[in-house]
Amino acid sequence: MKLLIVGGVAGGASAAARARRLSEDAHIVLLERGPDVSFANCGLPYYIGGEITEREKLLVVTPQRLRSRYNLDVRVCSSVEAIDRSAKKVRIRDLVSGREYEETYDKLILAPGAAPLRPPIPGIDLPGIFTLRNLQDMDRIMECVEQGARQAVVVGAGFIGLELVENLVRRGVATTVVELQDQVLPPFDKEMTAPVAEQLTTKGVALLLGQSAEAFDQSSAGLVVRLKSGQQLPAQLVVLGVGVRPENKLAVDAGLEVGPRGGIRVNDHLQTSDRDIYAVGDAIEVKDYVTGEPAQVPLAGPANRQGRVAADNIFGQPARYRGTQGTAIVRVFERTAAITGASEKTLRRIDRPYRKVYVHPLDHAGYYPGAEAMTLKLVFDPQTGRVLGAQAVGGAGVDKRIDVLAVAIQAGMTVFDLEEMELAYSPQYGSAKDPINMAGFVASGLLRGEHPQIDVEAALTTPPAVRALLVDVRTPQEFAAGHIPEAVNIPVDELRSRLNELPHDREVAAYCQVGQRGYLATRILRQKGFDAVNVGGGYKTYRLLHPR
Amino acid sequence: MKLLIVGGVAGGASAAARARRLSEDAHIVLLERGPDVSFANCGLPYYIGGEITEREKLLVVTPQRLRSRYNLDVRVCSSVEAIDRSAKKVRIRDLVSGREYEETYDKLILAPGAAPLRPPIPGIDLPGIFTLRNLQDMDRIMECVEQGARQAVVVGAGFIGLELVENLVRRGVATTVVELQDQVLPPFDKEMTAPVAEQLTTKGVALLLGQSAEAFDQSSAGLVVRLKSGQQLPAQLVVLGVGVRPENKLAVDAGLEVGPRGGIRVNDHLQTSDRDIYAVGDAIEVKDYVTGEPAQVPLAGPANRQGRVAADNIFGQPARYRGTQGTAIVRVFERTAAITGASEKTLRRIDRPYRKVYVHPLDHAGYYPGAEAMTLKLVFDPQTGRVLGAQAVGGAGVDKRIDVLAVAIQAGMTVFDLEEMELAYSPQYGSAKDPINMAGFVASGLLRGEHPQIDVEAALTTPPAVRALLVDVRTPQEFAAGHIPEAVNIPVDELRSRLNELPHDREVAAYCQVGQRGYLATRILRQKGFDAVNVGGGYKTYRLLHPR
Repeated sequence: MKLLIVGGVAGGASAAARARRLSEDAHIVLLERGPDVSFANCGLPYYIGGEITEREKLLVVTPQRLRSRYNLDVRVCSSVEAIDRSAKKVRIRDLVSGREYEETYDKLILAPGAAPLRPPIPGIDLPGIFTLRNLQDMDRIMECVEQGARQAVVVGAGFIGLELVENLVRRGVATTVVELQDQVLPPFDKEMTAPVAEQLTTKGVALLLGQSAEAFDQSSAGLVVRLKSGQQLPAQLVVLGVGVRPENKLAVDAGLEVGPRGGIRVNDHLQTSDRDIYAVGDAIEVKDYVTGEPAQVPLAGPANRQGRVAADNIFGQPARYRGTQGTAIVRVFERTAAITGASEKTLRRIDRPYRKVYVHPLDHAGYYPGAEAMTLKLVFDPQTGRVLGAQAVGGAGVDKRIDVLAVAIQAGMTVFDLEEMELAYSPQYGSAKDPINMAGFVASGLLRGEHPQIDVEAALTTPPAVRALLVDVRTPQEFAAGHIPEAVNIPVDELRSRLNELPHDREVAAYCQVGQRGYLATRILRQKGFDAVNVGGGYKTYRLLHPR
Repeated sequence: MKLLIVGGVAGGASAAARARRLSEDAHIVLLERGPDVSFANCGLPYYIGGEITEREKLLVVTPQRLRSRYNLDVRVCSSVEAIDRSAKKVRIRDLVSGREYEETYDKLILAPGAAPLRPPIPGIDLPGIFTLRNLQDMDRIMECVEQGARQAVVVGAGFIGLELVENLVRRGVATTVVELQDQVLPPFDKEMTAPVAEQLTTKGVALLLGQSAEAFDQSSAGLVVRLKSGQQLPAQLVVLGVGVRPENKLAVDAGLEVGPRGGIRVNDHLQTSDRDIYAVGDAIEVKDYVTGEPAQVPLAGPANRQGRVAADNIFGQPARYRGTQGTAIVRVFERTAAITGASEKTLRRIDRPYRKVYVHPLDHAGYYPGAEAMTLKLVFDPQTGRVLGAQAVGGAGVDKRIDVLAVAIQAGMTVFDLEEMELAYSPQYGSAKDPINMAGFVASGLLRGEHPQIDVEAALTTPPAVRALLVDVRTPQEFAAGHIPEAVNIPVDELRSRLNELPHDREVAAYCQVGQRGYLATRILRQKGFDAVNVGGGYKTYRLLHPR
């Protein structure tokens, strides 16, 4: 068996190591265009910011180590130029010597990754404008910072963009973010990104949403980024983080099928349309595990798993790739945001019915010092209660809750299962009723009908003639500090004695800070014959949707 | 509906709040023997240690709040003395006035909790000897510390015992722990507690395992604890943490069924043998969710859930309690230990077949600062791969992995599912191959037969004539720093060229530091015709079983 692997970072390196463990006798050639294999691309921003101080730490495995330990034929600076499928061989160019040569294969794995987009904007090739994909890109940005860049513009507020922003600020560079959409972190639902946007502003980052770069000009002070709005941003450093495109040229030239967005098509064994050619990693089109839709999800974890699955199938150990959930996490200064499964906007786009709940719990028991608030959003099937997706934003403990919900989605669990989860509790780590349980209680109560709930958006967009009376059941102090317009204030503890103040001919929508007192109020009112609902997630959710 | 609830802490208070949300009209009487309801019993040690500075924080809800918000008839300092089942009434004693009176019920929920054991040791009632169950106990221990106790003896190294030890040390009290078993934290498997025992010693705690108190004497310097070994320990403060017994007297006197260990018997609706009497919390016998065996598991999370379930059933909303997994966590200074599901010793005790693996990963990517090592142990069904239990010990991230595995157990997932879990990865929070994935890889490889593995204990206890040759495949430097007795050293990177040094007529057991190089070595050797196995979990696991 002679196995060629094109691309030596996450998916390719994983496939190679797995292949060797499965077959000591196979000839395994790992071909990488760059000078490094298996580097830590998720760590690049933190070297720029200085949290990672040794560049060598980013080299997870060296070519030499892959040779000595795994007996791999590793060839770096080697670009695969073409695949001859009928002859089962590839043409390779040695980028150092310029020499071209051919190599045959029995099986081929394509793991070429995805390349940062460079939109055709005038001036995009000026010096000082970078993307960040590999160590060489990192070195160039680092050099620019060390040569005294004082102002930076990051175009694109996705994961890599915001990680880079944090690290540029850490280096004392005044940074502006320009994002085409009206929110940061586009995979998230907009309201869940409000705390991240606020954090950026708090840390002195200028955030320009709904805007885009029209041109880049050179100036005496470096560069000027001209926006479509007419605004001009001076900068000595510009980094583009506007997305990636699958590196599919090799596949397309060889006649392999690709999807509409360019991802190489694979079956669930990760075979391309040529049964001797597999493909893995950021270059492929995957199946969204929740929606079943084709998707492109450039993430390191799935790439690694795909590498293993491809190697397993090649070496006679049938394995299936179950699809990608899109579990992802990002830290932005002191905020953490994480997501798994389908977002609300994805479900709306594909017109799939759902319900949603928000809870705003603490990460651990409130009586123990250091508890941090989070917001957890759950979307689920309105009939079965099956969990379809989750997002969380906050501080400590966000990663844990999203991991728990990622497993729940993998297992096909429902919101009723979340009520019953028995998670580890001591005051440093959680609560007797964990945030996950709380989300389960609210969602299950909603589906069982004991907890009728209206979404904040719906409560506010109903035509005035039929709009519910909003009743703020918090304390007068909380009410005075800010409330939903038109709401009246009746604290929950006084509600039983003030029922006569409420109408019987109009829906009553109770709300509190996070939803819990509103829930109790709703239960009281309904049992007393009122047409009452709870405003889901309370005033905190209103504030996410209507940031100050 | 008139509902009486006996006990107002976790299970009782949860049942009361839930009952009110389900029925605005019910008469709900909450009877609590102590002066406080719903206090944070898990926080008591941290008030003694000073991390929690305000005593009021431990009062999660006051009686007044329960009255005003939930319209509950709360009666503290009220002891229920007897149940008259035929007349459906209870006799209550007001502990302040001494008055006795009766109260009828339609339904009764027993949530009396469990009382700390006070073994009948001579001198056990001397002043200065305490247990820790409620705020009054805490106040007494606090007073003793503040009056200048310099030496303390904690009898029992369970969760509460060790939390108390940490906090006494924090207050500058020289502390000795006396534990009957040969390990700390009895619910865990012994080897998993070795890092906790080491941590205690590092922090200056004297740890006396396999020992017990025979008598307590008074002395001029306070107390003397005399051990069975003859050792005498001077102390001004002694705290007993040797377990709890269900408060079942009321139930037993009323003729309700109890289990052999005293737990009140309930069905999965949490009904006792009297259909109008429910029981919840530490006083009941539950079903172990994994083994199906009856068990007593005094934990706050399950108690809260049981309170909800009982109230649901009483108010016509049928609910089942699925059993208890025993998910628990404890922080001991800078170590965290957590467990869910069945331990290895439980499986041995009930003679249920299992396999096990150990992994020793970092909590997050090694290239990012601050990564901390953990040991994760997984026990699973040898046929199906179903996860039966997990334990972890380490620093950051232990809580997250045990929560993920708790959900896997709840969902009936297998080790093959762990391979496929898509967990949140960025360098601060995890790795592209998360510790959970790593455990899944090792366990799945073992079950698929690609990764033959021998447990450390088995490798060392096989009779010498048929014992495998131990090959340490780490570097010479690692070998020199400590290795398993009788092992020879052939680094994995030299293995392919030194095969001639190994026997074909004897099993070869490869090991490295954590199991990964040993796995590769095993794969190489088996493919070259050797009868090779990997020593599960490597030298680190050996060290857990054989602490220095």
